[in-house]
Amino acid sequence: MSYFLLCYYAYFLLITLSVGVIFGGIMFLMGSWWSPSSSLPSHKMEATEGMVSTPKALPYFVALSQILGLTVVAITGAWLGLYRGGLAWEGALQFNVHPLCMVIGMVFLQGDALLVYRVFRNEAKRTTKVLHGLLHIFALIIALVGLVAVFEYHKKMNYADLYSLHSWCGLLIFILYFAQWLMGFSFFLFPGASFSLRNQYRPQHVFFGATLFLLSVGTTLLGIKEALIFGLKNKYSMFQPEGILANILGLLLICFAVVVLYILTREGWGRPRRAEEQALSMDFKTLTEGDSPSPQ
Amino acid sequence: MSYFLLCYYAYFLLITLSVGVIFGGIMFLMGSWWSPSSSLPSHKMEATEGMVSTPKALPYFVALSQILGLTVVAITGAWLGLYRGGLAWEGALQFNVHPLCMVIGMVFLQGDALLVYRVFRNEAKRTTKVLHGLLHIFALIIALVGLVAVFEYHKKMNYADLYSLHSWCGLLIFILYFAQWLMGFSFFLFPGASFSLRNQYRPQHVFFGATLFLLSVGTTLLGIKEALIFGLKNKYSMFQPEGILANILGLLLICFAVVVLYILTREGWGRPRRAEEQALSMDFKTLTEGDSPSPQ
Repeated sequence: MSYFLLCYYAYFLLITLSVGVIFGGIMFLMGSWWSPSSSLPSHKMEATEGMVSTPKALPYFVALSQILGLTVVAITGAWLGLYRGGLAWEGALQFNVHPLCMVIGMVFLQGDALLVYRVFRNEAKRTTKVLHGLLHIFALIIALVGLVAVFEYHKKMNYADLYSLHSWCGLLIFILYFAQWLMGFSFFLFPGASFSLRNQYRPQHVFFGATLFLLSVGTTLLGIKEALIFGLKNKYSMFQPEGILANILGLLLICFAVVVLYILTREGWGRPRRAEEQALSMDFKTLTEGDSPSPQ
Repeated sequence: MSYFLLCYYAYFLLITLSVGVIFGGIMFLMGSWWSPSSSLPSHKMEATEGMVSTPKALPYFVALSQILGLTVVAITGAWLGLYRGGLAWEGALQFNVHPLCMVIGMVFLQGDALLVYRVFRNEAKRTTKVLHGLLHIFALIIALVGLVAVFEYHKKMNYADLYSLHSWCGLLIFILYFAQWLMGFSFFLFPGASFSLRNQYRPQHVFFGATLFLLSVGTTLLGIKEALIFGLKNKYSMFQPEGILANILGLLLICFAVVVLYILTREGWGRPRRAEEQALSMDFKTLTEGDSPSPQ
């Protein structure tokens, strides 16, 4: 029964933490939307004629993504609490730490990290970068806890490791995600990379970031499916409440991914580049190596 | 035993058909690459300075996508043939028609349909549009055969329908895919839609097309997982050859999706718009309704 206590402590701690992070983020974000951003002098924006500071539909889509993301985390917790006995680090309940951590880290926080540049449009570029890197680091750490939980659980139960498609995809994505973080850090936060190198790497970083997010959601769906079939067996086809709840969780995960992808791919929803940032990068470039102004 | 005969007939027919379509496509595509496209007068291209007619890396990525796509179809066939008794429309083997049709239709042909505009860069816009629509129609028909197969099989075996996450996603995606086709047809092939309406709808069409493709691949992965757990049960964790083959199939499906997405999202890899097409659209627009030249 102490499992139960620990489970609910951990569960509420995690939920509260993420709700806190998100609502803090939303407040911050509202602040930046409600600030007189439209009164920014036009020379501070890149010469993209007709581009407004915050596109009209963006706040609604961001709000929708946050509602979906929080719902996904809450339903995962509810599923584990209602039908799987809750969470604990000891005993058989250790397995349940895995899905909750993966959904919070690899889905919710990773998705939010991708949105940072589109949400914080009027903050300094460096602040936004640091927030982007930090959210990814939180995601990585929480996901690592989830991975340790499932490997320890398998060892305890004498189950085989890494035989399923879910596990193959999961481990591969986690390693690639870590590599992507290291690459991003060394190109964009570490002050060594040149202006043209950053410009060349940026589209690759964006593409692989979005791809790893989508693959994480896909792998989560595989995991849900695996847990349902192993857990419910033939009862899965009898429309049990657990099966229906987890199917709905799967659909909501897809909705979250689609909304995040939609926000990321809208032209003109990107962070407007300011003249002084361009100038700073150019100065920095000239200081460090002075390559030709036009990237090949 | 007649199942076996029928199975191999159907299998080879489908494989031959798709290989035929693809190699025909590749020949056509090589023709269009090897034609003196670089000698096109520069005024026939949109004013995108420095844009070459065929980006250097594009052919290699397209070739890679086709190799991956064909391998995925072949491995699906091999899996069903080697470990699941092959294909037949009668009896229990009818189920196996489902995965093969879905992989050919919803993955391979749908993916290729998305690439059409990036591959056939120098053909007339109308030809490219018709090819895009036709590939999607083929995909829809083949997928419909796959859906009928699984519903008939369930009925025959008295299995419940539509209880799993795979089935929920699958049916939803098929309906949305059909709706997307109808929308695409009425906006872009049917001559009723105005120039500005087409321009407004185009980014949505592209986004939802790519999303439905990715969701189709995700749903296929869920299906593979389901088939493996139901088929192999506890033997899945013993690294059986079937499990490993199907896991590799899953990874290759992901690679195919990533390569297609990469080709689709490269800036400057899009089909260059020619001056006379712009003029034609404008004429057409003026003839039909004459709205203002600038879409809102």
